Amino acid sequence: MSGIVVRNIRRADTGVIAALERLGVATAHEAQGRTGLLQPYIRPLWRGARIAGSAVTALCHPGDNWMIHVAVEVVKPGDVLVVACSSECTDGAFGALLATSIRARGAKGVVLDFGCRDANELTQMAFPVWSRAISAKGTVKASVGSVNAPVVCAGAYVVPGDVVVADDDGVVIVPRLEAPTVAKAARAREEKETGTRARLENGELGLDIYDMRKALAEKGLRYLDGPVD
Amino acid sequence: MSGIVVRNIRRADTGVIAALERLGVATAHEAQGRTGLLQPYIRPLWRGARIAGSAVTALCHPGDNWMIHVAVEVVKPGDVLVVACSSECTDGAFGALLATSIRARGAKGVVLDFGCRDANELTQMAFPVWSRAISAKGTVKASVGSVNAPVVCAGAYVVPGDVVVADDDGVVIVPRLEAPTVAKAARAREEKETGTRARLENGELGLDIYDMRKALAEKGLRYLDGPVD
Amino acid sequence: MSGIVVRNIRRADTGVIAALERLGVATAHEAQGRTGLLQPYIRPLWRGARIAGSAVTALCHPGDNWMIHVAVEVVKPGDVLVVACSSECTDGAFGALLATSIRARGAKGVVLDFGCRDANELTQMAFPVWSRAISAKGTVKASVGSVNAPVVCAGAYVVPGDVVVADDDGVVIVPRLEAPTVAKAARAREEKETGTRARLENGELGLDIYDMRKALAEKGLRYLDGPVD
Amino acid sequence: MSGIVVRNIRRADTGVIAALERLGVATAHEAQGRTGLLQPYIRPLWRGARIAGSAVTALCHPGDNWMIHVAVEVVKPGDVLVVACSSECTDGAFGALLATSIRARGAKGVVLDFGCRDANELTQMAFPVWSRAISAKGTVKASVGSVNAPVVCAGAYVVPGDVVVADDDGVVIVPRLEAPTVAKAARAREEKETGTRARLENGELGLDIYDMRKALAEKGLRYLDGPVD
Amino acid sequence: MSGIVVRNIRRADTGVIAALERLGVATAHEAQGRTGLLQPYIRPLWRGARIAGSAVTALCHPGDNWMIHVAVEVVKPGDVLVVACSSECTDGAFGALLATSIRARGAKGVVLDFGCRDANELTQMAFPVWSRAISAKGTVKASVGSVNAPVVCAGAYVVPGDVVVADDDGVVIVPRLEAPTVAKAARAREEKETGTRARLENGELGLDIYDMRKALAEKGLRYLDGPVD
Amino acid sequence: MSGIVVRNIRRADTGVIAALERLGVATAHEAQGRTGLLQPYIRPLWRGARIAGSAVTALCHPGDNWMIHVAVEVVKPGDVLVVACSSECTDGAFGALLATSIRARGAKGVVLDFGCRDANELTQMAFPVWSRAISAKGTVKASVGSVNAPVVCAGAYVVPGDVVVADDDGVVIVPRLEAPTVAKAARAREEKETGTRARLENGELGLDIYDMRKALAEKGLRYLDGPVD
Repeated sequence: MSGIVVRNIRRADTGVIAALERLGVATAHEAQGRTGLLQPYIRPLWRGARIAGSAVTALCHPGDNWMIHVAVEVVKPGDVLVVACSSECTDGAFGALLATSIRARGAKGVVLDFGCRDANELTQMAFPVWSRAISAKGTVKASVGSVNAPVVCAGAYVVPGDVVVADDDGVVIVPRLEAPTVAKAARAREEKETGTRARLENGELGLDIYDMRKALAEKGLRYLDGPVD
Repeated sequence: MSGIVVRNIRRADTGVIAALERLGVATAHEAQGRTGLLQPYIRPLWRGARIAGSAVTALCHPGDNWMIHVAVEVVKPGDVLVVACSSECTDGAFGALLATSIRARGAKGVVLDFGCRDANELTQMAFPVWSRAISAKGTVKASVGSVNAPVVCAGAYVVPGDVVVADDDGVVIVPRLEAPTVAKAARAREEKETGTRARLENGELGLDIYDMRKALAEKGLRYLDGPVD
Repeated sequence: MSGIVVRNIRRADTGVIAALERLGVATAHEAQGRTGLLQPYIRPLWRGARIAGSAVTALCHPGDNWMIHVAVEVVKPGDVLVVACSSECTDGAFGALLATSIRARGAKGVVLDFGCRDANELTQMAFPVWSRAISAKGTVKASVGSVNAPVVCAGAYVVPGDVVVADDDGVVIVPRLEAPTVAKAARAREEKETGTRARLENGELGLDIYDMRKALAEKGLRYLDGPVD
Repeated sequence: MSGIVVRNIRRADTGVIAALERLGVATAHEAQGRTGLLQPYIRPLWRGARIAGSAVTALCHPGDNWMIHVAVEVVKPGDVLVVACSSECTDGAFGALLATSIRARGAKGVVLDFGCRDANELTQMAFPVWSRAISAKGTVKASVGSVNAPVVCAGAYVVPGDVVVADDDGVVIVPRLEAPTVAKAARAREEKETGTRARLENGELGLDIYDMRKALAEKGLRYLDGPVD
Repeated sequence: MSGIVVRNIRRADTGVIAALERLGVATAHEAQGRTGLLQPYIRPLWRGARIAGSAVTALCHPGDNWMIHVAVEVVKPGDVLVVACSSECTDGAFGALLATSIRARGAKGVVLDFGCRDANELTQMAFPVWSRAISAKGTVKASVGSVNAPVVCAGAYVVPGDVVVADDDGVVIVPRLEAPTVAKAARAREEKETGTRARLENGELGLDIYDMRKALAEKGLRYLDGPVD
Repeated sequence: MSGIVVRNIRRADTGVIAALERLGVATAHEAQGRTGLLQPYIRPLWRGARIAGSAVTALCHPGDNWMIHVAVEVVKPGDVLVVACSSECTDGAFGALLATSIRARGAKGVVLDFGCRDANELTQMAFPVWSRAISAKGTVKASVGSVNAPVVCAGAYVVPGDVVVADDDGVVIVPRLEAPTVAKAARAREEKETGTRARLENGELGLDIYDMRKALAEKGLRYLDGPVD
């Protein structure tokens, strides 16, 4: 589906998106069976942002950011732009002008399998960006790709309208139709962890809380008093 | 030109250097036709520095920082030391003592195709360093290289006296004789961007401001209303 | 020694550990003959921590953090957990719950040849973590490794009870029996550097302080007045 | 869709598969609009193999090859097994015993986002393998993944039954429903290239055959007679 | 133990070494509990060599191969030289002259955490070399390291006299005192695999031979008939 | 100098080029003071080629091979095309059609800081190619770069007309004006090595031939009889 722009997409429920935003990447990822993560080379430009939104996707080509300009027009308030590349590229495909523009259209942030630039200014704008590099290398506007076609971005499959959750731990994609279930499972996980945390703070061991001792012995783990020389 | 130290070099005009410092890496890089960038693996030790100065170059060998000691003597106030390596090396060739010394001689900062160390102290000194790694690994003083010979540093060709511009976006080299032209073009670019930014903040689209719609259609980009399943 | 947990290990003297903590990674590394460094891909999660402690070691398998849970039980106050992996893996083997637990048992920090997750929360807890990546990718508890057996972690050989020193420059291992000697040599080095620093601040040159000019000439280094065109 | 094995899948027409096998990766990739390639770190174990077949997919976890054993049962003669991993791993998940087994079931080859081992024996067997590494590192059978669920393998999205084409240039995925169209376009491309090749062999220039001179001039390319000093 | 050369080391029994050579890397690695492998970036210069011998170790510094010259003197017929580096370096530390020399002293091959050069000539000599790169970059003879001290080479801990096994799958270290046990276990593993291979060739499934079906069901693996759309 | 094609360049003497071709990369590199090497990630597509010729340079952009088509026209018999990229890219910028064309114009081979494709066919043509990857990924013809301007290719500075020497050890650039001196020094080095080789084959040690024992002792190297436990 190259050469196509899809103007309208289905989005997830805003309440579900808000819940996933609050729960964050690690919890959402666990809650959907440890799937959907972008590779860890995708890092936030600055620490402390946490966002979730509906994915608007763009497929660009190496050294070329033309489709980002096209994507800005179809972004709706609350969306997160996800930019894939047809091969590996660290060029600075996104900077302060595009951030100004896409923020004006309501986007909450951008995830790029490219580099970004204007790092200082983007940070001062507090505009959330996740990218594979910071690079001043400019890009051209010469090759047509797609907007709102499914893409593979940093190892994850992203369908437009999927929920993108991004924070200091990275980026996870929650498929739109599974988002309500995942949000529910994530909340349950969060509650359970709260209780566990209190016990761990008191010095109880995960070995006991999670009942691991028997399984470890069955796998053959042996204890020596030591020291061993 | 190994085994040579050149004591005196030609430098660019200080007004031009000051202009490039204010304009920054991304703008200068664009203004000189998207050339001269060091590869993006060169990163600032700490965020927020922006400097420009005349390049004093050193060519060292892997695991060896001897020529940095030699270079300190020929640095003049306002210069930026650019350290290349004859093959890939992340060892910590530059730390707090060298920073103390080269700052005392007037250098504004250092760019290294090596690692740096004493990261915490260098940051507290607010001494600007761009490097490929942070590594405590010490280096020897055993092999002679060169100072103020042309070098390739992180993929860029650097002639002594070229202008080095460095900030959070990375490092760009502006050839000395082209620096006035580049500074002028960069200022023009900056002014134009100021106007564009205001329009983008108001929600105008880059598609219209840059007049891209016709070219996109000619390249075959098609719009679908969607959603597509 | 897979499948083994050693409960008790010999530890270095607490005074020696305190001295190494104050002196830091770069100085300790130099003082022991430039050995014992973990590779520089191991980075602190947040800048500014400096710790030293006795190494408790865990050997895990890719995608599996079970042995960290086992290690928590044998950690003593002041220890540093060092987690090796039997092959390369960036999965998030350590997060906020494990940090809560191991801090409750007295550990000063954790060094991982894995990724960590809950980056934001770990930073707010000010719990010191050095890792090769930040990744939300969850791990399983399925394969038995070892606790308190010698390991290779990020290129360094670590025997349980060795002193781990970690700061913004990375991580260095000081063998337990050599720790007093290294601490002494590091203090001597520190004192000498203090004197050198004052001279460098006054503009004296390393070339003269370290008496390098004769050796450089013997190696054939030649000075040209320049400029060269 | 973790924890699922789908026994039966739809496959492409065998004539179409045979055509794509003959045409090879580069031609098929161009014919479908330069999409569907696995990243170039996936390399053949030995040079000279060229295969195409229907994708049977397996999703494994790092350090674990259990799902390959499960996949062997559902492979049909002529299929190609595509093994993805839930995070990056170079362990040797596939060796001579598995090759013996899957060849006995009729598979034509295997594509792995893992390492392979028994490199010498696999080569002597002339069993076609594409992998990201050669590594003797053994794997466990502890975690359940999936067989014949859609996967992302080395950056490409693979639906079971898609056509996998693999040769010395790498691996490309042709979606099942598009395979007849792609095969047709690839044949057309091949014919055209045959004619072009003859002209190029005679010394005609691509500049003229592809009529590039006008476009180059419009983009501002200028010719100097030279030499330039 | 820097600055030390140990002339004489204990070696493993030649019969045990011969057995491990015949069995190869993957089998030996499995037989000793999946430990001792060098990282897979260490590759053979040419395919088809398989050797085993007693490790003579050298620790060099980046860009410096002096200790290889020192090591040649202490090599005994049948040994394998293992060269570690104090930080990462791909320089060509070993070429045809050193190969001529060390072969004249009886060495069976060389393993380098460096690059090698004279690739064509080394291949024609059929001298077995495993290295991390091929690079013509020359090295100096300036810094003292060690010979026959324990080293970490490409992630594995190597004590002089340990058995080095190397083939197309990579390199594994078998500790000297464990070598007889490992060789015995490896032979047992080989015999068992011969039987398994015959059954797999007949189309029997690993699922049945290894009795995996029950464990898979317990872990929750479910089968669908499919196709799934 | 972007947007420029220089039709005519100065070339080195053909006798000098022939001498450097015979001597090969490692010897030429040593003879010119260990400079001029391309980074070792540039590898030959097939083993056994050794060429030298005058550099014709092209600067392309990521994902774009247009300037290769332009360069074909200005290549003269005996030249070697050197293709640089304005940022990192592994796309397959060169394949069998371009090889057919450039061979018809007399080029001896191609060096690419890109990927190549049609690997099997290029190998069967025995056309010499050095590249950073093999990738079927196609490229566009959209952005103008330069032909016969100086470039940085894989870390080496290349001026058109410099001598490119390439073999299994990689690629080295010998500046045109220095080529006669380098060829002479390389021949001297070769003769000396022939003598050394004979002595090494007889079991003499480099320690003695190169007279290293005194320098080693002065640097503090100590011999122990061993074994050490």
